[in-house]
Amino acid sequence: MPDKPIIPEALSCPLPIMDHDTIQLAHGAGGKLSAQLIEKLFLPRFGNQTLDKLEDQAVLELPPGRLAFTTDSFVVEPIFFPGGDIGDLAVNGTVNDVAMSGAQPLYISVGFILEEGLPMETLHRILLSMEATARAANIVVVTGDTKVVNRGKCDQIFINTSGLGVVPEGVNISAANLQPGDKVIISGTVADHGMAVMTTREGLSFQSRVTSDTAPLNGLVKAMLAVTPEIHALRDPTRGGLATSLNEFARSSQVGISLEEGAVPVRPEVNGACEILGIDPLYVANEGKLVAVVPGQQSAAVLKAMRQHEYGRDAAIIGEVTSINPGLVTMRTGLGASRIVDMAVGDQLPRIC
Amino acid sequence: MPDKPIIPEALSCPLPIMDHDTIQLAHGAGGKLSAQLIEKLFLPRFGNQTLDKLEDQAVLELPPGRLAFTTDSFVVEPIFFPGGDIGDLAVNGTVNDVAMSGAQPLYISVGFILEEGLPMETLHRILLSMEATARAANIVVVTGDTKVVNRGKCDQIFINTSGLGVVPEGVNISAANLQPGDKVIISGTVADHGMAVMTTREGLSFQSRVTSDTAPLNGLVKAMLAVTPEIHALRDPTRGGLATSLNEFARSSQVGISLEEGAVPVRPEVNGACEILGIDPLYVANEGKLVAVVPGQQSAAVLKAMRQHEYGRDAAIIGEVTSINPGLVTMRTGLGASRIVDMAVGDQLPRIC
Repeated sequence: MPDKPIIPEALSCPLPIMDHDTIQLAHGAGGKLSAQLIEKLFLPRFGNQTLDKLEDQAVLELPPGRLAFTTDSFVVEPIFFPGGDIGDLAVNGTVNDVAMSGAQPLYISVGFILEEGLPMETLHRILLSMEATARAANIVVVTGDTKVVNRGKCDQIFINTSGLGVVPEGVNISAANLQPGDKVIISGTVADHGMAVMTTREGLSFQSRVTSDTAPLNGLVKAMLAVTPEIHALRDPTRGGLATSLNEFARSSQVGISLEEGAVPVRPEVNGACEILGIDPLYVANEGKLVAVVPGQQSAAVLKAMRQHEYGRDAAIIGEVTSINPGLVTMRTGLGASRIVDMAVGDQLPRIC
Repeated sequence: MPDKPIIPEALSCPLPIMDHDTIQLAHGAGGKLSAQLIEKLFLPRFGNQTLDKLEDQAVLELPPGRLAFTTDSFVVEPIFFPGGDIGDLAVNGTVNDVAMSGAQPLYISVGFILEEGLPMETLHRILLSMEATARAANIVVVTGDTKVVNRGKCDQIFINTSGLGVVPEGVNISAANLQPGDKVIISGTVADHGMAVMTTREGLSFQSRVTSDTAPLNGLVKAMLAVTPEIHALRDPTRGGLATSLNEFARSSQVGISLEEGAVPVRPEVNGACEILGIDPLYVANEGKLVAVVPGQQSAAVLKAMRQHEYGRDAAIIGEVTSINPGLVTMRTGLGASRIVDMAVGDQLPRIC
């Protein structure tokens, strides 16, 4: 059975009294029940000056600068898993995609697709979790949408979030910016999220104690940029895991990336679960980790700043960028040999986010 | 059977050769098949300088001004219907939500949730339709996301779009801006979209010839704002129809809205279909219509400009804003009596968009 999500005490408020205990088709039809859902469930969680206007769009004042804009849909199964749920995942996922441009995320939209019959209590739990996460990430929900589909036509709840943030001047982060001599830094242990979901799904969660790392990384990125704006590339290795993100970097920049075997941190319990299920942790999704590529000279200072941040305590340099093997990621084994770390062909971990 | 969507000749290109004829779970797993889907299907349709970078977020240069930001998920059933499909609906719906702030829509995100087994040909047809619509609306797809869920866990395809546009200076459109003496203008016939979907679903499409009005309204809004920036309120009456939009206006502004019976244009074939199905056209979704509230003095000039635009040819003044009955919408019947036009309770038309 999935664990209950951790909801801060102050936010664990009871479900308001509603006309229905479960989601009805009419909750998505734009009439009175839609209005009740918005007024009783959504506004108490997300309400703010912009959202309260209930216009069909948010009109926002933004500071000048380049805008980062991103979208993600979340279909994770199960919707509650050790360490999180689809709600905090949906907020953190988009916060992190915005943050990986170096931007501070400011605004987020939330689009729900709900299955007829979803218990109102389940939706409320997810909303409480989204509220707590949005506060932690310091991001404001400014616009939203709710659709309801007939029973059996979706899987309880899907959530889309889109995010906006302003990229600071002088920051230019891109997968195409890698230079030979750069160092590759991971912000912590890999494969936690994917294995938390997989072990829950396989009924192994009790013995494995594997917990999702779902977390907002905008604060960590801010701390890194305070050391140097010269961060070449950033990515949160979600679907496809670290191996896929690094392959995308190597291709975009036409450089090689050489990893040191044993340098990539993996929790023992995650490693154990990976072995049981026959999965390589390099290909498993993370939801609270980033991989950064920084010039060699700045790498020690950036690493130090990362380790001082709560979401970067286990940060480690795991490899470097080379001019040989352009487009490829390789792993140097203990004996001095090298193997290619390819992109995932990947149907091993569907619906991980 | 649903009609085929109308795809301009130049865009009806054949499906590229892919490894699979149908969507696999791996197409959403972030690995090689995800990359193939993006490279072979998505980029040829939507490719541009920003999207081609394949970063996890778009970094955009925007002109200064207030930003309009909106999101919508589309779950329409059936996905192809007379006059359109889920693809053009997803583009037009978000273009219109942005445009209803007075903004010109500039950028759009696209998030797909695909069902395992969806024919690649179906996805391709939808993409061609989205491409044509994005061109017509002059909007650029800058970021996207694709998830795949197991067979039976969604209904072929759901699409989320989020949109961005810049609100021109001096424009201040809001549901809270209505003033007594304002005129209410509808841009054309109501209930076309909803009845096109409903008659298709009920197997009545052949005899009814009812066609969706799905269209991008940003050009029409621009033409109206060229007459006067003093447009008080704008909304595209989708779910819940015209009656719901007007009720929202009346509540937000705490004014009355008095409609003239017989003034709201409805196509005869739509009226006929509404009668057969026992549905009031005032509550039926439109996807290419807007309702505007403008000061009485400007109403004639705005109406004239609307009628000169291809999406406003049947525009009509349908009522006025009053200080009596605040918060209520009423309809004056031929005999001088009045009835209340309430908000829809509304489960009559699920999954209309």
